[in-house]
Amino acid sequence: MDLKKTIREIPDFPKKGILFYDITTLLKDANALKFAADKIFEHYKNEGKTFDKVVSIESRGFIFGAILAYKFNEGFVPIRKQGKLPGKSLKEEYEKEYGKDIFELHEDSIEKGEKILLCDDVLATGGTAQAAIRLIEKMQGKINGIAPLIEIEPLNGRKKLTGYDVYSLIKYQ
Amino acid sequence: MDLKKTIREIPDFPKKGILFYDITTLLKDANALKFAADKIFEHYKNEGKTFDKVVSIESRGFIFGAILAYKFNEGFVPIRKQGKLPGKSLKEEYEKEYGKDIFELHEDSIEKGEKILLCDDVLATGGTAQAAIRLIEKMQGKINGIAPLIEIEPLNGRKKLTGYDVYSLIKYQ
Repeated sequence: MDLKKTIREIPDFPKKGILFYDITTLLKDANALKFAADKIFEHYKNEGKTFDKVVSIESRGFIFGAILAYKFNEGFVPIRKQGKLPGKSLKEEYEKEYGKDIFELHEDSIEKGEKILLCDDVLATGGTAQAAIRLIEKMQGKINGIAPLIEIEPLNGRKKLTGYDVYSLIKYQ
Repeated sequence: MDLKKTIREIPDFPKKGILFYDITTLLKDANALKFAADKIFEHYKNEGKTFDKVVSIESRGFIFGAILAYKFNEGFVPIRKQGKLPGKSLKEEYEKEYGKDIFELHEDSIEKGEKILLCDDVLATGGTAQAAIRLIEKMQGKINGIAPLIEIEPLNGRKKLTGYDVYSLIKYQ
């Protein structure tokens, strides 16, 4: 199945000059949603990898993250933007298009040594993934896999994730 | 399984006087996550209900919504806050604690007559569910089920949803 055919490309969103890869057209297609989730799951199964928790980044990251947590029969842990998590949380800054923002992760969400699969929708410059990694590693979680649905290769995000097992299902040049 | 034991109650969040039901402690518990998703799925299976799409409200609603879309082998459609969806969208106002906000739904996300399961994390006053219903019905989707994970019964949200099949897994008095 060619998943790229199910992704809509929208020019000049969220600002002029940006080509936005809209995954909502993939998500609404039942066969594409199932195919994509199963492919990511099987990749790690075939590698013999196991996880204790799936950590996902708000909010598009929650979609495949939740499905993978369910399929692996593991717990799901959200990384959220500042002020959304009600419990005691660790904080990390990350770079946005304009200025900085803050991610949070509940302090009781990951136990020392737990194996983590980190899910997000897009790997672009890698800034959000790096902030998520810092949060997980502060809690002494062990990142066993990073699974962005889409990787935009010219933005070189993968270079910031050297040493990690990054598996992106859909790659754009 | 007593799911309430996996939900953390946090007083005075997000503001003084509110008791917040924190589902992150349920989500991180692999058995509770699986049990809850399977229960909602089985409820509708036992009723003989089928759906064409699962629609979920940003962002906690995405978690069980995505798992249920996967389990039913149907498409997943997000309702998002204003400005997040890149395609042409319908808009609806909803009441927040302070003032109003706007939800959006892609115009091409639901076909006329499609049967919809609406998922969210909490049914409280029912205001967000009502706005979601208006969006779905403007597109001529047929709401075949509404599945909030948690229902806070004293807030009477269910009264606003008369005529719909509302199934809440966890009820608080």
